[in-house]
Amino acid sequence: MKLAPVSPRAPLKLLDKHARVTDAPDEEKLERKTDEMVEQIADLQRMFYADGRFALLIVLQGRDASGKDGTIRKVFTGVNPQGVMVTSFKVPSEEQKQHDFLWRIHHHVPPRGMIGIFNRSHYEDVIVTRVHGIIRKDVYKPRYGHINDFEQMLAANGVRILKFFLHISRDEQKERLQKRLDNPEKNWKFNPGDLAERAKWNAYTKVYRDALRRCSTPWAPWYVVPADDKKVRDYLIARTVADTLRSLDLRWPKADPSVLKETID
Amino acid sequence: MKLAPVSPRAPLKLLDKHARVTDAPDEEKLERKTDEMVEQIADLQRMFYADGRFALLIVLQGRDASGKDGTIRKVFTGVNPQGVMVTSFKVPSEEQKQHDFLWRIHHHVPPRGMIGIFNRSHYEDVIVTRVHGIIRKDVYKPRYGHINDFEQMLAANGVRILKFFLHISRDEQKERLQKRLDNPEKNWKFNPGDLAERAKWNAYTKVYRDALRRCSTPWAPWYVVPADDKKVRDYLIARTVADTLRSLDLRWPKADPSVLKETID
Repeated sequence: MKLAPVSPRAPLKLLDKHARVTDAPDEEKLERKTDEMVEQIADLQRMFYADGRFALLIVLQGRDASGKDGTIRKVFTGVNPQGVMVTSFKVPSEEQKQHDFLWRIHHHVPPRGMIGIFNRSHYEDVIVTRVHGIIRKDVYKPRYGHINDFEQMLAANGVRILKFFLHISRDEQKERLQKRLDNPEKNWKFNPGDLAERAKWNAYTKVYRDALRRCSTPWAPWYVVPADDKKVRDYLIARTVADTLRSLDLRWPKADPSVLKETID
Repeated sequence: MKLAPVSPRAPLKLLDKHARVTDAPDEEKLERKTDEMVEQIADLQRMFYADGRFALLIVLQGRDASGKDGTIRKVFTGVNPQGVMVTSFKVPSEEQKQHDFLWRIHHHVPPRGMIGIFNRSHYEDVIVTRVHGIIRKDVYKPRYGHINDFEQMLAANGVRILKFFLHISRDEQKERLQKRLDNPEKNWKFNPGDLAERAKWNAYTKVYRDALRRCSTPWAPWYVVPADDKKVRDYLIARTVADTLRSLDLRWPKADPSVLKETID
């Protein structure tokens, strides 16, 4: 069980049924495998940090309650926080709106050695803006190209980019939002505005499809994560991250031989 | 076994023998207690984030190889990285030098709900600058007051501040630097410049004493952590952080009753 990148040439449906896999291992096995991957990520991160040739940028997108926060908690708790920076992008401030849409994003791109996680991202600027009709076609259409160019430039400078769309079904979202109302410890997460967004379900599906297909590139692939089952979601993302880190052929930097001869008084 | 804040009125020696405690529990027990504290921090952090009334700022200072990185890894790995931001302050850039010394610091103070960790901090500006004689007395003397005022303003805005000086002995530093030379996986951490700093041992002791006594305040106490034994260091810091979080009387924010009556289609 493994994620494949979105193909810009193949159709992309994002139907409710695609929010579940049919070949999931049993729960216990899945949890064990996720734990293994998480441990591998934590181990690899140390060398990744020391190696210092690459940055890793992980973009998480998805509807409300699709599990962006939960993914970060499950997959990255256990990684040394000194090597991880998480940025949550909210509605842009008045100051940010006076800049191009990538300005605030660029600032938070992780430096070499670091894993950066975007909880929402520049993709909101071709998603929520379109659904709410607050952007003209002649403004949003060129943005897909701007995003691809921007991400290519990052990749050319050592930033590995993985983008995950957490895909949940309408029923699953209903259940999760209801839990936020029912569980006093989750009340603070409930935002009545989420219901207005939920009412625009199909409009969101359409703009997500557009963004995922137009911006899934060899240097910054999009992955659709079947996210109705949290354990499946965590495993698939953890595995993709671990595979990516493992593929980098990381090494411990060697000290200059003259340095190794130093004596310490 | 518990840390007490530095008293501005009592003498502060920072001798080599103060880098060890005499009443440490046996190793196994200590590790178990540290794990407990770390688990408590991870649990409390969730409510701390949801509660959103406070920020927690943890300042780590100490000589080279005193264990700043190790402390972050041991005490905060296991906390959801979405709730933690670590900032390492290096030699200021040319741009930063054109500003007051608190400008770059202020930018990285954690917002409410977040735990911010400073790996080195504004204290470098009254420590390394003094040891290297690159600051005049009429510039550094007022800085202690500026720091206290700044930290008081932060505290008045909900930022709880804990400052830890990781105190190691001259012998222990030697051993740790030697390990960086001997172990190829640690070579990258060895910086020949550390030897020049080590040669100024007593000058550092003096300026640390000054900074710790002048800037240990009720709103931002300094703690001297006996740090020759890493397990003791981790336990003492984890316990102080856990105690602080526990003292905040955190709560899950209650949703507005009208919100709880929402129905989800």
